[in-house]
Amino acid sequence: MEQRVSLVTLGVRDLGRARGFYEALGWRGQEVEETVFFQAGGMVLVLWGRDRLAADCGVSDVDDQGAFGGTALAHNVRTREQVDEVLAEAQQAGAVLTRPASDTPYGGYAGVFADLEGHLWEVAWNPGFPIAEDGSVTVPRLGR
Amino acid sequence: MEQRVSLVTLGVRDLGRARGFYEALGWRGQEVEETVFFQAGGMVLVLWGRDRLAADCGVSDVDDQGAFGGTALAHNVRTREQVDEVLAEAQQAGAVLTRPASDTPYGGYAGVFADLEGHLWEVAWNPGFPIAEDGSVTVPRLGR
Repeated sequence: MEQRVSLVTLGVRDLGRARGFYEALGWRGQEVEETVFFQAGGMVLVLWGRDRLAADCGVSDVDDQGAFGGTALAHNVRTREQVDEVLAEAQQAGAVLTRPASDTPYGGYAGVFADLEGHLWEVAWNPGFPIAEDGSVTVPRLGR
Repeated sequence: MEQRVSLVTLGVRDLGRARGFYEALGWRGQEVEETVFFQAGGMVLVLWGRDRLAADCGVSDVDDQGAFGGTALAHNVRTREQVDEVLAEAQQAGAVLTRPASDTPYGGYAGVFADLEGHLWEVAWNPGFPIAEDGSVTVPRLGR
């Protein structure tokens, strides 16, 4: 696993309001399918429905279990095969696979693990989001 | 507020175990004062005691309030004055100041706000962590 974070996704209950907050701070993003992507240096800050994020990570959004803190990290890889490799590596190190790898609606392949403390990492191959040599990820022009 | 994330801090209950997990994945970090810093591209992934992180953010680590998800983002700025500016901007946009700006033990100046959904952002001026022209942050050589 390369030493980098590709995306940080913040789960939100009111997407429009959350987007408005970051725009009031001068941020500019792109929204597609009720997901907002902000390029933030070499990584991407994402706003997405909190319930959808929890479901996508394979955990329940029940605070008293401490299972879902409302945030997930993503580690994007360059090939489909690397998704399985990194997930296996994480499991060997003690991580729990909360969502087995599968094809994604956006034409990629991804799975999610929880680290030893419950922090969630999606490991994703997303051919639509180019990864540079140095590992940085760029939000493409989205939408129709 | 520039559009970038400088640090992502994961709150952990067992620092040694958490560090060991990321090292098993091939990550290499530096530990100083029970805090582990991993350079991750242009930003930094930090492991720190969950209780300390909550206290430092001015929130209580009580899951059923949804006040603390176990993670905090940081936005580092180039001058001490910018800390106050960004915190004021965030408050105007509706954020709650959970820890007013103050001098930090490491010789900097920082405060913390919660966005409209409760996601925590530290806004920090940390002269020990250089910020490049493009906003990327580099972990310096730490320790004695």
